[in-house]
Formats: sequence, C-alpha cells, structure tokens
Amino acid sequence: MNRNIETFIGCECEYSEATTVVFGAPFDGTTSFRPGTRFASKVMRSESYGLESYSPYQDVDLYDLSIYDGGDLDIPFGNTTKALDMIEEYTAKVLNDGKTPLMIGGEHLVTLGAFKSIFNKYPDVHVIHFDAHTDLRDDYLGEKLSHASVIRRVWDLVGDNRIFQFGIRSGERDEFYWAKDHMYTNKFNLDNLDKVVEKIKDKPVYITIDLDVLDPSIFPGTGTPEAGGITFKELMNGILEFRKLNNIVGIDINELSPQYDTSGTSTAVACKVLREMLIVANK
Amino acid sequence: MNRNIETFIGCECEYSEATTVVFGAPFDGTTSFRPGTRFASKVMRSESYGLESYSPYQDVDLYDLSIYDGGDLDIPFGNTTKALDMIEEYTAKVLNDGKTPLMIGGEHLVTLGAFKSIFNKYPDVHVIHFDAHTDLRDDYLGEKLSHASVIRRVWDLVGDNRIFQFGIRSGERDEFYWAKDHMYTNKFNLDNLDKVVEKIKDKPVYITIDLDVLDPSIFPGTGTPEAGGITFKELMNGILEFRKLNNIVGIDINELSPQYDTSGTSTAVACKVLREMLIVANK
Amino acid sequence: MNRNIETFIGCECEYSEATTVVFGAPFDGTTSFRPGTRFASKVMRSESYGLESYSPYQDVDLYDLSIYDGGDLDIPFGNTTKALDMIEEYTAKVLNDGKTPLMIGGEHLVTLGAFKSIFNKYPDVHVIHFDAHTDLRDDYLGEKLSHASVIRRVWDLVGDNRIFQFGIRSGERDEFYWAKDHMYTNKFNLDNLDKVVEKIKDKPVYITIDLDVLDPSIFPGTGTPEAGGITFKELMNGILEFRKLNNIVGIDINELSPQYDTSGTSTAVACKVLREMLIVANK
Amino acid sequence: MNRNIETFIGCECEYSEATTVVFGAPFDGTTSFRPGTRFASKVMRSESYGLESYSPYQDVDLYDLSIYDGGDLDIPFGNTTKALDMIEEYTAKVLNDGKTPLMIGGEHLVTLGAFKSIFNKYPDVHVIHFDAHTDLRDDYLGEKLSHASVIRRVWDLVGDNRIFQFGIRSGERDEFYWAKDHMYTNKFNLDNLDKVVEKIKDKPVYITIDLDVLDPSIFPGTGTPEAGGITFKELMNGILEFRKLNNIVGIDINELSPQYDTSGTSTAVACKVLREMLIVANK
Amino acid sequence: MNRNIETFIGCECEYSEATTVVFGAPFDGTTSFRPGTRFASKVMRSESYGLESYSPYQDVDLYDLSIYDGGDLDIPFGNTTKALDMIEEYTAKVLNDGKTPLMIGGEHLVTLGAFKSIFNKYPDVHVIHFDAHTDLRDDYLGEKLSHASVIRRVWDLVGDNRIFQFGIRSGERDEFYWAKDHMYTNKFNLDNLDKVVEKIKDKPVYITIDLDVLDPSIFPGTGTPEAGGITFKELMNGILEFRKLNNIVGIDINELSPQYDTSGTSTAVACKVLREMLIVANK
Amino acid sequence: MNRNIETFIGCECEYSEATTVVFGAPFDGTTSFRPGTRFASKVMRSESYGLESYSPYQDVDLYDLSIYDGGDLDIPFGNTTKALDMIEEYTAKVLNDGKTPLMIGGEHLVTLGAFKSIFNKYPDVHVIHFDAHTDLRDDYLGEKLSHASVIRRVWDLVGDNRIFQFGIRSGERDEFYWAKDHMYTNKFNLDNLDKVVEKIKDKPVYITIDLDVLDPSIFPGTGTPEAGGITFKELMNGILEFRKLNNIVGIDINELSPQYDTSGTSTAVACKVLREMLIVANK
Repeated sequence: MNRNIETFIGCECEYSEATTVVFGAPFDGTTSFRPGTRFASKVMRSESYGLESYSPYQDVDLYDLSIYDGGDLDIPFGNTTKALDMIEEYTAKVLNDGKTPLMIGGEHLVTLGAFKSIFNKYPDVHVIHFDAHTDLRDDYLGEKLSHASVIRRVWDLVGDNRIFQFGIRSGERDEFYWAKDHMYTNKFNLDNLDKVVEKIKDKPVYITIDLDVLDPSIFPGTGTPEAGGITFKELMNGILEFRKLNNIVGIDINELSPQYDTSGTSTAVACKVLREMLIVANK
Repeated sequence: MNRNIETFIGCECEYSEATTVVFGAPFDGTTSFRPGTRFASKVMRSESYGLESYSPYQDVDLYDLSIYDGGDLDIPFGNTTKALDMIEEYTAKVLNDGKTPLMIGGEHLVTLGAFKSIFNKYPDVHVIHFDAHTDLRDDYLGEKLSHASVIRRVWDLVGDNRIFQFGIRSGERDEFYWAKDHMYTNKFNLDNLDKVVEKIKDKPVYITIDLDVLDPSIFPGTGTPEAGGITFKELMNGILEFRKLNNIVGIDINELSPQYDTSGTSTAVACKVLREMLIVANK
Repeated sequence: MNRNIETFIGCECEYSEATTVVFGAPFDGTTSFRPGTRFASKVMRSESYGLESYSPYQDVDLYDLSIYDGGDLDIPFGNTTKALDMIEEYTAKVLNDGKTPLMIGGEHLVTLGAFKSIFNKYPDVHVIHFDAHTDLRDDYLGEKLSHASVIRRVWDLVGDNRIFQFGIRSGERDEFYWAKDHMYTNKFNLDNLDKVVEKIKDKPVYITIDLDVLDPSIFPGTGTPEAGGITFKELMNGILEFRKLNNIVGIDINELSPQYDTSGTSTAVACKVLREMLIVANK
Repeated sequence: MNRNIETFIGCECEYSEATTVVFGAPFDGTTSFRPGTRFASKVMRSESYGLESYSPYQDVDLYDLSIYDGGDLDIPFGNTTKALDMIEEYTAKVLNDGKTPLMIGGEHLVTLGAFKSIFNKYPDVHVIHFDAHTDLRDDYLGEKLSHASVIRRVWDLVGDNRIFQFGIRSGERDEFYWAKDHMYTNKFNLDNLDKVVEKIKDKPVYITIDLDVLDPSIFPGTGTPEAGGITFKELMNGILEFRKLNNIVGIDINELSPQYDTSGTSTAVACKVLREMLIVANK
Repeated sequence: MNRNIETFIGCECEYSEATTVVFGAPFDGTTSFRPGTRFASKVMRSESYGLESYSPYQDVDLYDLSIYDGGDLDIPFGNTTKALDMIEEYTAKVLNDGKTPLMIGGEHLVTLGAFKSIFNKYPDVHVIHFDAHTDLRDDYLGEKLSHASVIRRVWDLVGDNRIFQFGIRSGERDEFYWAKDHMYTNKFNLDNLDKVVEKIKDKPVYITIDLDVLDPSIFPGTGTPEAGGITFKELMNGILEFRKLNNIVGIDINELSPQYDTSGTSTAVACKVLREMLIVANK
Repeated sequence: MNRNIETFIGCECEYSEATTVVFGAPFDGTTSFRPGTRFASKVMRSESYGLESYSPYQDVDLYDLSIYDGGDLDIPFGNTTKALDMIEEYTAKVLNDGKTPLMIGGEHLVTLGAFKSIFNKYPDVHVIHFDAHTDLRDDYLGEKLSHASVIRRVWDLVGDNRIFQFGIRSGERDEFYWAKDHMYTNKFNLDNLDKVVEKIKDKPVYITIDLDVLDPSIFPGTGTPEAGGITFKELMNGILEFRKLNNIVGIDINELSPQYDTSGTSTAVACKVLREMLIVANK
C-alpha cells in the first residue's frame, strides 16, 4: 500500500535515474488581465491521462524515456522576488545534477527565474521565443518584474542578437520598434524558423513557449487570447524542427489558464505540447 | 390538439413512408475519461432548429427527403451487453423494413451494435472510419467491449482489408503497428479518401464518423479532444466525396458530448454533419 | 476627482473633436434562437483593455486618431420600431455633425436603423455585407422587422446591384435563389472581395459585419454558430482590402453574444475587429 | 413505430380526456436585464425525468391524474402584442373546453395574456401573486406592456382588493406606496397566506408564481436574483395551503431562466413546483 | 527529491501506522440521469487544501490523527460487477488490517461493495443512511445493481429493522410504502436521529451519506438535485450526534458530481463533511 | 454628448457635494487559493443596474443621498506594498475632505491600506469584523502582508479589545486560541452583535465585511467558500443593527470573486449589501 503519487503521464522515473526533470511553477502574481495560470501544472498533470504516452508524430513513447516529475514548487503569494528565487534555485539544482529542466508555468515571468540559472551555466545560450506578445516593455506600471517585460529582462542578460521571436502579433509600437535593433522578431507566424534553427543548431538553446502563440480557436484557455495566431499543425511542425537542435539546455511552456476553457481543449493541447517537447528534449 | 412531437429539423416523415431512419443511442457506459455522450441525440434534436433544413453545399433541403426520426432508444444503465443488443435489434428492424439506418451516438461502442445487423445483411460490407483514435485495442482494462476497442471488434467480423481509417492521430504504439497489417490507416487527415472511395464505390459501405476526427478548435465538445485534427471544410469535402458511393448501407455519427462546449458550437457542428449525411444517404 | 468614464481603449476623444463616433446599440429583441447580443458593446468596452491600442497589421495606434465613444443607446424593451428609430436618430446626428458612425450591435437588425440615416445622406451608397446568413427573408414568422430579413429591408431602400455579400453559408433555398437576381452573393468565403472593392472604391460604401461570418472555431460567441466560416486571418485580409475604399460612410459590427463564449475569445476577437475597422475608417 | 413525443413527466394524457392542460409560453421579449426565460418550458420538459412523478408531500402520483401537455406556443419574436394575443387565445380554448390551464413562462408578462381569458370567464376572479418584485410600474421606459408592469395591468382588469401579493422585496418606492391603496402586499415572506386563503377560498382564484419569490440560494436561475427570499420549504408550505382553495381557475409559473444555473438545480426546483401545483389543481 | 504525493489535507500517514483509511471509488456506471461522480474523490483531494485541517466544531485537527489516503481504486469501465468486487476486496483488506475504511464515491451503488465486506466482518451491523432518495427499488430498468436500488441490496443482507433512513424526500410510491414494513424512514429531515443513535449506540454501525440529503442550495453539485433538503448546519448537528456512537465500523460519502457546481462550493462542502467524519471515526 | 460615465446605481453625485465616497480596490495579489476578487468592483458597478435604488428594508432611496463613485484605483500587479500605499493615500484624501469612505475589494488585505488612514485620523477606532475566517495568522508562508493575516495587522495598530469578530468558522487552532486573549470572537453566527453595538455605539467604528461570512448557498462567488455561514436575512438583520452606531468612520466590503458564480447571484448579493451599507453610512 503506497501513498498516492501523481505525475504527468509517462513521467514516473525516480530523480536519480532521470535525464529530464519536469516541474510546475504555479505563479501568476504579475498577471495584469485575467489570473489563473497558477492552476496549469496541476490540471495538466491530472488531465494528461486523457492523452496517450505514445507520439505518432515522432514515433516515441514517453515510457521509453527517463523523466522525473518533481511536482509543483511551493511558491508564496504576493512576493514576486521570492517566487523567482525559488524557481532559479530549483533549476540550478536540476542543472547541477546534469539533467535538463522542463518547467510548466505559471505566467511568462517564471521564465526569468529558470533562465538565470540556465544563463549561469551556459553563458552562450540562445533563446527561441514563441509568443503572441512581444514581452519587451522595460517596465509595466512601474514594475520591472512583469510578464509583460520578461523577454526584456532576458535580453538584459544575453544582449543583442541572441533572442529569436516567432508568432508575435501584439505589443506597443515602441516594443516592436525597439526589437528591430536588438533581436530577431518574426511577426504573426513561424516563417524562417528553419533558418534560425540551422544557424544556431550547435549552440546551447533555451526554448520558451508562451502557448498563446497558438490561435485562440485551438487555445482559448489563456489570460489574453489574441486572434491571428498559429494553428496546432504549424506549432507541431515547429516542434519537429526543434529536433535539429543539438543542444537544448532548457525548456518552458507557460500561460495556460485552464479555467477559461471549460471544454478542456486548451489543457489537452498543453499536455500534447509537453509530450512532444519532452521527446524533443530527449532526442 | 396533438401531443408534442420532437424531431430533428426536417425529419418529420412517418415511419412507413421513410427511406431513412435516424435514431439516438444514448449510451456512454464504457467511456473512460469524461462521460456525457448520452446527452448528444436529445440536445441535437433540440438545437437542430437553429440550423436551416437547406444545404447550400448540396443544394438539397431535408424536407425534399423522407426521413423518420425514431427518437432515442431506452437503454439501461450499467449493462453494456444489453445496450448493444437493443441497438442491434432496432437496426435489424430498420434494415428488414428496407430503410437505411443513421444512428446518433453515444460513445463509439454503439457502432458495434448497429454494425452487427449491417454485417448480417451485407456480409460484404466495407467500413469507412473517421476518427482521431485508432480504437483498435484488443481490450481496455480487461474489457473487450469498450469504446477503445470498437473497431477491433468490427474487424473481428469483417477481417482484413475491409476497414479504411482516416484522420487517426492518437493510440498506443501497438495499435498503429497492428493496423498496418490489417487495414488501411491514413494518419492525421483525409488524404487518399478519393482513392478509397473510387475503389469501393460499388460495394456496400458503412460509414462511422467519430466527430473527434475534427480538430477541437471547431469541435471541443467531446470526451477526449485531440489537437491536430481536420477542419470543418476538410470534413465537408470528405462528405461530398461520399456522394460518389453507390451503396451506403448505414451511417453513424458519434462522440458528441454537448455539455463540454457551452457555446453550443459542437452541437451545431454535429447537426450540420447530420444534415449533410442525411442528404448523402438519400443521394 | 472625476467621475468614472468608461470607453473602448483608445477612444477617449471629446465629441466635438472626433472624426469617428463609436456607439453601442444593445438590442436583441427579434433574435429567434439564443438572445444575448444586448450585452456585446458593454462587455467589449470593458474587455478592450486586454487588447493593445496599437495595430501591428496597419502600424497605427488608436491614440493617433480622434475617436469619441458615445456609450450605449438607452433602448427600450419589447418595442422594435422605437428601438430602430432611436438608432436612426442618433446616426443622423453623428452624420450631420460630419463624423463617421461605427455602431456596435446588438443583433443584425440594428443595421437597418443606422442605414436609414446613411441612405438619407448618401442615396448612392453601396453595401458590403459579411455574414454567415443571407438575412434575405421577406418576413420571419410574419414579422417584417427581423434579424433574418435585415438585408432584405436594406435592399428595399437601395434596390438591385448595390449589395455585395460575402461568406454566406446558411439560409433558405428561396433566399439563395432570390439573391441571384438582386445582388452579388459570394458563398462560403471572401473570394472576389478585391474585385468588388476595385469596382466600388470611389462610391460611398457602408460596411456591415455580422461577426458570425467567422468560423465558430474562432468566434463561438454568437447566437447561431455556423461551421464552415472564414478564419480570422481571412477576415483580417478582407479588412486590409477595405483600406482601398476611398469613401467609407459608416460601419457596423454586430452579433457578438459574449456570454456564449466563456473563454472571452469571441469578445477579444470583436475588439480586435473594432480596432482594425476604426483604423480603416480613419485611413 | 411512433414519432417521438415529449411531455413533462406524468403528463401524457390525450387532450380530450384531460382535466388540466399544461403548456409553455416561451416569451421573454420585454425582459430588461438578462433574457432567457424563453428556454424554460423546453428545458423543464426534458429535465422533468430526473424527478419522480410521485409527491411524498401530497401522497399523489401525476400518473393518477389526467394532464395533457400541449407543448410550447409558437410565439413570434419582436412583437409583444401578438405574443400576448396567442397566449390569450390558447387559454380561452382550454377554458372553453372545461379544462384548467397551467402555463409555464416565459417572463412574467405572459401572465397578462392568460389572465385576460381567465377574467373573461371568471369576472370575479381573485389573484394570488408570489414574487420578489412588485411588478406594479405603470410603464417601463414608456412601455405599458412590460414584465415590470404586469400586475398593474392585471389590476387594470380586476381593480382594488382582488390581488394578494407575497414575498415582495424589490421595487420602486412609488410602487410600494401605490400598492398600499389598491391591494394586499405582504413583504419579504408568506406570512398571512393562511388568512388570505381562508378569506377567498370559495372565490375563483388565479395563482401566478414568479419563481424569483424563492431565495436565489435555491433558485439562482432567473433574470434578476433578489436575496432575502423564501426557502423552498416555505414555498412548499404555501403550496400545501393552496389545497384549501376550492376553485382554482388557472395557474402560471414563470421566470425560470435555466441557463443561469448550470447546476440544473433551478430547473429541478421549477419542475417540482410544477408537479406540486398540478396536484393542487387536481385536488 | 521525492515524487509528487497527493492526499486529502491532513491524511499523510503511512498505511502501517494508520487507524483510518480513506480511499476513492470513482465509479458512476449505473447513474441514470447525469454522470460525473467518478470525478469526486480526485477533485476533493485537490480542493481539500482550500480547507483548514482544524475543525472548530470538534476542536480537533486532522494532523492529530493517523489517516492514510490510499488514492483511488483503478476501476474498469462498463463492468458493474467487477467494480463492486474491487471495492469489496479493498475494503476487506483494510478491515483485516484492523483499520476503519472511509470510502469516497462515486455513485451510491459503491456502498454495496464496501458493505459486503463490512457485513462479513460485522454480521450484526446497523446502517444509518442519509439521502434524498429511498434507493429501495428492487431493480431499475431491469438491473438489480443500480444506484436506485442500493439500499434494497443492503437490506437483502441485513434484513428488517437494521436500516435507519433520514432526509428522504424522493422515490416511487411503492418504495415509500415498502419501507414502512422493513426499516425506519424519517422523511425530509433528521428528526429522531438522536433517538436512533441512543438505541444503536453500542452496535456496530455503518454510516452511508448520500450528500444529496443536503438541500441543493448548499449542494447543487450532484446528479439529481432535490429541493427541500437539510441545511449544512442540520447535517453538522447530525454529525456531532454520531460522536455518541461507540462502534462506527465504516463510513462512505458519495454522490458529489463536482462539475455541476462550477463555484466549487459543493466540493468544499464534501471536503468539510469528510473532515468532520474522519474526526468522528477517530473519536 | 457626454462621455460614458459608469457608476454604481444611485451614486452619481459630484465629488465636491458627496458625503460618502465609494471606490474599488481591485487587488488580489496575495490570494492563496483562487484569485479573482480584482474583478469585483467593476462587475458590481455594471450589475448594480439589475437592483433597485430603493431599499424596502430601510425605506430609503440611494438617490436621496449624496454618494460619489470614484471608480477603481489603478493598482499595479505583483507589488503588494505599493498597492496598499495607494489605497491608504486615497482613503486619506477622502477622510481629509470630510467624507466617509466605502471601499469595495479586492481581497481582504485591502482593508489594511484603508484602515491605516482611518486609524491615523481616529486613534480610538473600534473594528467590527464579519468573516468566515479568523485572518489572524502572524504570517502566511512567510509573508506578513497576506489576506490570511490582515486582521492581525489591524490588531498590530489598535491592540487588544478593540476588534469584534462575527461569523468565524475557519482558521488554524492557534488563531482561535490566540484570539481569546486579544479580541472578541463570536464563532459561526452574529449572536451578541446587539450587545457589542450597544457597547461601542458612541465610539468611532470601522466595519469590514468579508462577504464569505455568508453561507456559500447564497454567496458561492468567493475564493474559499465555507459552509455553515449566516443567511442573507441574518446579515440583513446585522446591517439594520448597525443603524444604532452613531459614528461609522469607514466601511469595506470585500472578497467577491464574481466569476465563480456564473448565475450572478453573488454579485447581486454584494450589490444589495453595498446599497444597504451606503444607507447605513448616511443614516
């Protein structure tokens, strides 16, 4: 009689034997419009059993791999700095133990916590960023630490020409103009992803997927749905493109707010993206 | 003053004069993930009045045809075998009276009940199967009669090379591999449907449409939404392709779970598919 | 300390300085299937703050323009004629003051109120009509003033060859047949919009967008969702095409029923369409 | 093989043999706040099968009685006068055939249509009115025919001291003050119902139950929920009190808006009230 | 780094050290009206963290006790007999190990599985049954194993005068009449619970709580809401009365269908009942 | 043509002429379980038009009074300290201008911001606290500023015997025990409120109403519903008791999370409490 263990489907490995560590960062403290991403990882874990562990896209089964599910971090409420510190620390532990972290947000700001540890270990890291929004404000209502400025904070670390944005279709005029001088921004879709992948395929690469890059027709369960996004098949093709990267050092998937999509489709989509990215990370 | 009669829009013919019989099989007893397909036929009947009886796709009006709506079977709860027997018996009656049955599920297992009577009358029947899932498990948690094994049970009857699957994108690895030796499986989309139709156009053909073949963007109201499906326009083109079949002997449409899509879109989609399939059946 | 003013994002101009006037017509009195469009303008105003005021499609910010938000008309309940009169009167005032009206419905019948004033000032007006439905019944259950007959009523005013319909995929057979003799009807999509725009680009043009022209995958929040519609990207391309029109004299956007889409996506879509149309109107 | 007949549970009698006729009046055309009562009768009919036909409160089974379910009237949209005329005509037919009408609204204004026929046949009729709202405005935004003025219109017919209101807890000051001179108004609860029943027990009595008289804790499914209402047990005691009336000439039950209570409780409550009132009417 | 363990709040004891074992039986296979109780135990486990572990009613904290949470049984779909066998077997194991079982349903039929093992060990067991429904049908649509006949099946085991029902307000006339000869049935409320407790306080007692005994105002999240139930405070007083029982040998709490109450109140109520009953079981 | 002004019903006074100022504090940054109180004030403002401005309980109409609605504070996200500072500053301004503040939360922590200014002006202030929860933790997961510790922070200011709690039914054992030495805590209900009011009626009194003091049957729209609360009638009686206080110096009403109650009942309840408290404040 063992106590009740809950994991994402196919992520039942012990920590010591795992090559990849998936964990949740249930933080939505700076969300400006509609909160709720704090529920994402828990709901995904539960709903993942509606999904098969086998991917017909990559012909791999999650049970072929060695993945540990660390559960959710115990993040406090109302203290953004402490939340990011906890994420940074957990990621550092995973990296130090030689494993690849795959974090489930939470709002997009959680990326900053994980990325600090990534950058520490891989100063040469490049970033692929899928999103509907630029996330490049220098601050938001005076706050430097905000979901709306997270990629700007990442840029503070890596500097120019190391960030590659795709699917962007919302932001302030200033953000779009500023981006032109500092990073590669592909508006509206994933065009040229193949060229970017070809160019950085031997670099350490961190991938951050804000799921609102998807069109809200297939992913309405997010705080700020932005019409005009990519289809699931386009995202799937992007994921398959990632298989050409030789050194993926970390991944995050964020901005699912499951309660806004009562059909459960958005959660099922997030689970499928997670399955495929876990396979990509173990390619 | 007549008592209140409820039918699908345009299906108001008396039984004796009908060429086609539509009826509901409100059974979801083996659904493993999220139940609710038991509500589909009743809700569709009611919501069908938001739809026009005229199809601009086929330039036919349902009122031009002779369709009887038999209401819903009075299926007991917790007894899978008896449920299938009732469906089989009703279908046999319809077939014996020289009419074409069009059944509304219910979960996909209901197909087995109807198909047994079809197979009895048309031993040479071929099957076109639209679905997101393979449905080819030999059993599910030990149960032979399961929504997850229904096509395997159909295969038990018809044997190799008589089943043609389209849109499949989820299943166990073993199911995908087993299918290669026993049937035609077109993954992800409806490619090659035209070739299959051309090949079997003079055979008796049974068509089973699991509506989750559609992408959940347009059909979220189902137990297990699977991203990466076909669009409504692709399905519509498939339906128009069916017009080339010369001997459609039965049809079912299943796996709508209306309560998971509070917008009513999924129900409206199911009603439109029903309208178009009724016209195809009477071509 | 000023009292609490609520406007659509970026529509904060005073009336006297505005070139464009946006206002709500919260009327759904003839809706036959599912009511609720009365809530559209109010909910859009509130949710518009989840949207950016900057359009990366047209590289214009709403704050660059001069738009006044007049709030919602105080329409009575249960009196269709009076409702239309109030809309007509308000539109006349806006036109007389030399401003362009952009009305948010409400059900599609509200178009008739606004259009009467438009037609009064611009007898040569041409109409571009995006919709899933023909809206060409001569009456509906005996009522001449109905959402299902609104374009027929517009035709009563302008006569043949002045109405251009796109995206139409639902109606009675008689409506489709009647339309062939009296207007241009492009079924299912926006094909040939470029040719129509080229042809009438120097005429006064009124644009009426029934948002259910969109596929319900991206716009489920409407009374009668009709699968097989256009994607958001197709609509966006149509909107950009409107930039070639030289004399847009009025616009309406209608049939959002926000409560049917609990994810908020439909409202967000309507807000984005509004933003883009406001920019088009001020091109 | 008979076509699909739908009735409230236990209301399966033919018209000719019935003593009581239940029918739906799906009209919500003057609803000012949140529409949706048009769906009540249809949803109640369908959900009534979750209820037992036997009442342990009155020890009677609906199948002991002779009740005909006439379905729903085919009310047009956007024409209040015509809607009331249809209701009046149908009620007159039922009364002329010597049967007792029990109408399911719809908004409260439907009472006026039925009551006109009642008053025609029984000029001495007295009215018991359960409601949260006074419904005594002389007009609402200029409209004489409004859910907010329906009891005032009933008073126009019967005059002073013939109307007995219970449970009232919302209205304009003027309504409360006006009522003091023209009828009996019991605020907040059902106190003194026994005395009123005793007083008018041999008169012809019409009972109109606006279900929002119930506290929204048990009946949230209504357009304008008003806290501070009566409990279900209090309502049930009131219904049992009605058994002492010797000449109930008509009943209506209105203002269920089923879609606002996704749990289905409000619909189940309305069905139970209907069951008990049907038994009362046949006492 | 330990794998993610999920328990009800305060139930974190190891099996070997526990005095009480709580486990879920996610079965709803015979539910006739609206399914969904299969989700209850999982959702309760997750939502229990919104509750405090301390009861101000009994001044006890769950962490003072020794409770093991065994998770959910892995019940197959579509096989009622096998489901009951699994429950019986698990309960037997718990009893054999000298611990008290507290089962979370699932539909009410699960009681039969657990009770068989209880009856095996305690042939003299008495049953306290809280419910809105009699559950005394001999069969339901021909099925002997049904949620609607579960207490009849329990009676098959224990015979006359060993079952004590409270809160009953729905059933067929025959059930109410049959009950008079075979058990104690207290309609509508918990009156006389104190006398029953006094009478059987030294007997082995099994308590089965169908949560729909509560009024749907406080517990709408159930398949068949029945107005006229007891308040939470009345239930709480009943629970405190149970403290006088000296030999509680098993408990079950069933019929929560969390998805029908989107506010989460019903789940929170079920969790609080669970907390209080766990304390009662360990008194 | 004036821009669109939105206020609570009956709160249309200019600031300079107002005796009472109502404003929203849309902050939910420390909410631990389910966020969403940020939406309360905006939704209440909009839904208040379903309510009458006249109170039949106090026979006063809001339009008789002079109330200014200041809209919502523009609170940043992810910075608790700054949020509280903004609330404190706004409250100070209102107090300095000789008006009474009535704040709509937001989560309960907002009380601290307003109360600091109150305490500054009225060092002798006493506090009446209605709540389900003690809110007396010294910190929550290490955070001193938390909804779970707000009354402890208020105590830090006022010290012993100045706080009077009612309706409390949830908390840690330590909180209940600590409270015994430092304040008056009435568990479960409003008993003895009359005595407390009598005792402090000539003192300056601040009233903070956490609406979850109500039973979730009538108020499910809150983050942490706690069964066993007071009825609306009990709360109403408490409010009428407040009329005996001679010096109410400030009020807040908090913890409505409107989206958890899709029926709108909770919002309507909050609006009615607001109406009655506005009248109490102007007695």
